[in-house]
Amino acid sequence: MIESIKDSPLYPIANPKSIAIFGASNKVTTMGTGLLGSILDLGFEGEIYPIHPQEDQVLNLKAYRSVLDLPTVPDVALIVLPTRIVSETMDACGRKGIKHAIVISGGFKEVGNEGVTLEKELVAVANKHGIRFLGPNCIGVTTPRHKLNTTFMTYEGAPGFIGMASQSGSFVTQMFNYLSRHALGFSTAFSVGNEANIDIVDCLEYLSACPDTKVIALYIEGIRRGRAFVETARSIVPKKPIVAHYVGGSETGRRAGLSHTGALAGPDRLYDGMFRQSGIIRAQSIIELFDICWMLGSLHGDAGRRVVIQTHSGGPGAEAADACGRSGLELPSLSSETIKKLSPLIPHTASIGNPVDFTFGKNLMDYFSTIPEVLLEEKNADVLLYYFSMPNRTLERMLKHMGVPSDEIAALAPELLDAQCEAIINLVETGHKPFVGYTFQSIYDKLVRRLVERGIPIFQGPQRAVRVIQAAFQYTQLRDKILSAVSQE
Amino acid sequence: MIESIKDSPLYPIANPKSIAIFGASNKVTTMGTGLLGSILDLGFEGEIYPIHPQEDQVLNLKAYRSVLDLPTVPDVALIVLPTRIVSETMDACGRKGIKHAIVISGGFKEVGNEGVTLEKELVAVANKHGIRFLGPNCIGVTTPRHKLNTTFMTYEGAPGFIGMASQSGSFVTQMFNYLSRHALGFSTAFSVGNEANIDIVDCLEYLSACPDTKVIALYIEGIRRGRAFVETARSIVPKKPIVAHYVGGSETGRRAGLSHTGALAGPDRLYDGMFRQSGIIRAQSIIELFDICWMLGSLHGDAGRRVVIQTHSGGPGAEAADACGRSGLELPSLSSETIKKLSPLIPHTASIGNPVDFTFGKNLMDYFSTIPEVLLEEKNADVLLYYFSMPNRTLERMLKHMGVPSDEIAALAPELLDAQCEAIINLVETGHKPFVGYTFQSIYDKLVRRLVERGIPIFQGPQRAVRVIQAAFQYTQLRDKILSAVSQE
Repeated sequence: MIESIKDSPLYPIANPKSIAIFGASNKVTTMGTGLLGSILDLGFEGEIYPIHPQEDQVLNLKAYRSVLDLPTVPDVALIVLPTRIVSETMDACGRKGIKHAIVISGGFKEVGNEGVTLEKELVAVANKHGIRFLGPNCIGVTTPRHKLNTTFMTYEGAPGFIGMASQSGSFVTQMFNYLSRHALGFSTAFSVGNEANIDIVDCLEYLSACPDTKVIALYIEGIRRGRAFVETARSIVPKKPIVAHYVGGSETGRRAGLSHTGALAGPDRLYDGMFRQSGIIRAQSIIELFDICWMLGSLHGDAGRRVVIQTHSGGPGAEAADACGRSGLELPSLSSETIKKLSPLIPHTASIGNPVDFTFGKNLMDYFSTIPEVLLEEKNADVLLYYFSMPNRTLERMLKHMGVPSDEIAALAPELLDAQCEAIINLVETGHKPFVGYTFQSIYDKLVRRLVERGIPIFQGPQRAVRVIQAAFQYTQLRDKILSAVSQE
Repeated sequence: MIESIKDSPLYPIANPKSIAIFGASNKVTTMGTGLLGSILDLGFEGEIYPIHPQEDQVLNLKAYRSVLDLPTVPDVALIVLPTRIVSETMDACGRKGIKHAIVISGGFKEVGNEGVTLEKELVAVANKHGIRFLGPNCIGVTTPRHKLNTTFMTYEGAPGFIGMASQSGSFVTQMFNYLSRHALGFSTAFSVGNEANIDIVDCLEYLSACPDTKVIALYIEGIRRGRAFVETARSIVPKKPIVAHYVGGSETGRRAGLSHTGALAGPDRLYDGMFRQSGIIRAQSIIELFDICWMLGSLHGDAGRRVVIQTHSGGPGAEAADACGRSGLELPSLSSETIKKLSPLIPHTASIGNPVDFTFGKNLMDYFSTIPEVLLEEKNADVLLYYFSMPNRTLERMLKHMGVPSDEIAALAPELLDAQCEAIINLVETGHKPFVGYTFQSIYDKLVRRLVERGIPIFQGPQRAVRVIQAAFQYTQLRDKILSAVSQE
């Protein structure tokens, strides 16, 4: 393991002060031009040197005929050129003294035969000059805090706490919008491509040392350095959770992965075992991968398996209870203290069990403050699973039918929303237990949106919420198992 | 089975011309007032008679002191009163000659002991007068085409093709917004409550005969008339698919359901067997229930298990392929005719396998027209699974960096969107195979939204899309099995 993040070959790649870009032009349809567009879009603050054999300017930046003409030695070379000239470009970069590169170009090992030979050549040239590089056949890196994004798509949203290494560039770029919709973001995300020089293990080391990364996400089609992967992961997990989505365990997945990055996949159970040994939580889809990251990155303290459910509707409560049971989570009975505290708050038609079903409660605000406060204090439970519906819209509608003037309703609605939002935030910040929401409302529903933007995880439907609670509990077990093995050594 | 929809006791309940409502007042916080609000909101076109002991007007409608004072005999009585006066109200309705009722009030069998006695009394009173009723402890019915919604929440969106019977009222009302976001809606939805008189089997018969219902959705916590349920379902499935979500198979789910509607649940495998015997597709969540309904209601013709995947990104393609493999779907090799037709359209870095990976294709529009057209003609495949990303936003961005004036970009963008949208619609309408989309973009992404509003199912992530393809194939198998058993009788 590296001592400091600056010892990682990925440090200058993820945080360059200057970039030479090969392949950007003034032609809109080229990949290189698109990448330069992304870099400009995010407002990169370092130097950018387009290298172009004919142009004097590229997208209004001064261009250079050759990398050898540059006034300084850039931190990183970004190469987006036809396959046949990548090696000679790498050689020129080496002669200039450049020590780090990102090779976007494809046409190497992933196409087989001559591609394999070309990739060997590229590696030899880089080794000759001591250049460390990401790729080929990747889409680069994004470090939104550093205003760096070398990928084809514009970064959306704010920087976040998810550090990612992905064997699919699409699962970096095509998740920008997805993450931003969930008020999540990347600390740094690497698309590793064919891993000819820098691989997913190097990414793990970097992300482990990265102070902005709270949780590490991996998308895997095949692992090359198995032993190093396991050892590195085991050294990270006690400090930081790692979540992985592996595609390749099914025959159809394996074939698709092979033509994609040329990685050799293994049977599912082999990877299952490797992840377990590494202390890695396995996700079953990309969406689940980010769900679990959301939960683990938002979590204060440890998670347990004893859940208390708060609902005001029987069906959503029963579905959540059922999902808990199927996932091995427990629904403890409420303690007599809790029942005593809830009794005055809950109507007689409601159920003071677990789920706690408020039905149409006596005072709407109790649902957002008093009741969850009591439940977060329940000594028999580790986590509060909380159902969000839409009482405000219904209340507004009723006021309308009562003839309350619409300007009064319009004034009242934001006040109610503020009160509910602040009550929940206050609970989450002062409570000592995880709070997880579920809903069938849109992530753009006013209350849901505000809470999500304040970092509270709220999932579509109870199954996804239950899965992340289970994963958080699984993390504490995996971590403790590694720690106990270490202490016995 | 009933001969005609009008033979169903639910016909006047779902399509009344006049309603007497008990429990609505001018007090905003009562349930009854909320329900009357919902009825008014949807613009019910029949007569509404509020019955109130003191008021002359309720929400600006003429009110009557007693149901006996009404000028006519209404089609249905909607009762939202305290438990203790429900039976006497039902008796008064009977004396007036009313033959159908909806009892919203709770406090009956679901609370145990005296509630059980009260429910027996209510049933006896209704039987005396020959009244058929839905409930108690339900939230009623919604038939949006008839502008009827007796539930607590405002109906959102347009009428749709999903006919539902639910043992949770919340899974009717709290899905209004969810369905509307997916451009789906109910034909009719029944909240069956305690099923004291009309039960889920009666709902099946009604929905079977309902011309607006293409697919039947059930939310089940426990079935009372097992044999009738199986027989009725078996007679429906050859004409119309039925999808059910059962909660109660886990211990935690069973306990939650019991306190909700008092239905006795059985072990999971018992219900699994009953659904299989009935030809019913089982969903594992409410969201999956509506996913499958979406697919089955949009489907033209039969679905098979041989899938061809179209993507322009390796990761999303590999994930979809993996999901197909895990779900027992096949990814056939493309025929030589298809490969011959695709070769000129796909760049050499792309992969003409299955998934067909377009990468950054030669001509953007090929992705929306020529390629899927070829794939829908592939003789080895039954279904096209199609990946939606966001090429337009990227294209607009690139044009911006090229210095294309923003008004020109603004003019170009809708044209592109129109062209893409119409190309896909045209394919779906003229193609003879199911087209299923998946994406990580929002359902409010411009292209996705327009296609969804035109009835094309597009799911978040490949797993949900693969699950509905599997369910559609399962339907054909279940249906054919019943038909073959019938023909042997």
